[in-house]
Amino acid sequence: MRLRNKPWAKDFMEEHPDILINEDEEVVRDWKGIFNNENPIHVEVGTGKGQFIIGMALANPEINYIGIEHFDNVIVSALEKAIEAGKPSNLRLLRGNGAHMEELFKQGELDRIYLNFSDPWPKTRHAKRRLTHESFLARYERALKKKGEIHFKTDNRKLFEYSLVSISAYGMILQEVSLDLHVEMPEDNIMTEYEEKFSAKGQPIYRLEAMFNN
Amino acid sequence: MRLRNKPWAKDFMEEHPDILINEDEEVVRDWKGIFNNENPIHVEVGTGKGQFIIGMALANPEINYIGIEHFDNVIVSALEKAIEAGKPSNLRLLRGNGAHMEELFKQGELDRIYLNFSDPWPKTRHAKRRLTHESFLARYERALKKKGEIHFKTDNRKLFEYSLVSISAYGMILQEVSLDLHVEMPEDNIMTEYEEKFSAKGQPIYRLEAMFNN
Repeated sequence: MRLRNKPWAKDFMEEHPDILINEDEEVVRDWKGIFNNENPIHVEVGTGKGQFIIGMALANPEINYIGIEHFDNVIVSALEKAIEAGKPSNLRLLRGNGAHMEELFKQGELDRIYLNFSDPWPKTRHAKRRLTHESFLARYERALKKKGEIHFKTDNRKLFEYSLVSISAYGMILQEVSLDLHVEMPEDNIMTEYEEKFSAKGQPIYRLEAMFNN
Repeated sequence: MRLRNKPWAKDFMEEHPDILINEDEEVVRDWKGIFNNENPIHVEVGTGKGQFIIGMALANPEINYIGIEHFDNVIVSALEKAIEAGKPSNLRLLRGNGAHMEELFKQGELDRIYLNFSDPWPKTRHAKRRLTHESFLARYERALKKKGEIHFKTDNRKLFEYSLVSISAYGMILQEVSLDLHVEMPEDNIMTEYEEKFSAKGQPIYRLEAMFNN
């Protein structure tokens, strides 16, 4: 993603602590307190400009959603969208690093993790940075309830091939696989910004659901 | 595959018992005796017109290959090709039903099973007939050595999606996945007749390698 410099980003984020949380705030790890209910928690790692997580929050008010994004200049776009959407009470944006999941969530706290159009890190020496590398799967497994699920979409063929093998090698069970999601679009599919763009070009969108076998 | 009636097929097959074996012959189940060596045995279930298995036999003389095909009118084309190729001593064509693997092979006798462009059986009520249905996976597991492998190619997206889920649910480990095989064609890829045809039309070829986790 091309990152434009947005010098106003920091101030703008600080003006909306009711929906945007920084990973170094003390409140982190008290998600039940933040949402003030016992509803299931679904997390998107790498939430980008937020179209997916905000759409999900609006469509499913009985589920709590947290969108994690590392880059200030990207998460401010998600923040703008969330404000436009009326700041749904079941949504929080978390400015932080997906690799820090151990500090961000208690063990077994989450019900589902979404990965959408993650950076493919095509070079083999960068494989560890892919969000479906075994080191990330181990973080997800810890943060998720037993038999927790990952839902993953991408347009990147090589990343999807890698992810199928990585997820299988980890001992996870593939529950759903689509190799051209938009041919038979599920009614409840909420598109990301990337998904709209690549799908409009006729590129296939790959999707899987996998369950930890623990 | 369109099946033309070939009234001469039966006589022609009976003239070449040195390379074509019928599943009801007594010799079946003594494959070491048939090949007269201890080399690994690789089987293709649904060998069609034989281009793949004959190509493999010629390319890898230190491996024994058995191509199983149910239909007389198809296997005679494989027989013709095998004769043209000089009847490689490490190749046998087996006229029979892949569902009869328990009668065709001893437990743990095989090293690898190939499935190429198998019938997709698209209707849900026919799922049991797909060669990657769990009932077939159980047959392959029995006939293969421990940690035995299945190598599977198809142009059929829905069959491949189904197969990824079925193989994963069975507890097998995906070792390799390609969602567009011909983009980075492996040097040792031997094409089937279908593969040549569909690939020439620009359709992606899907391929996986999976290992039984036993």
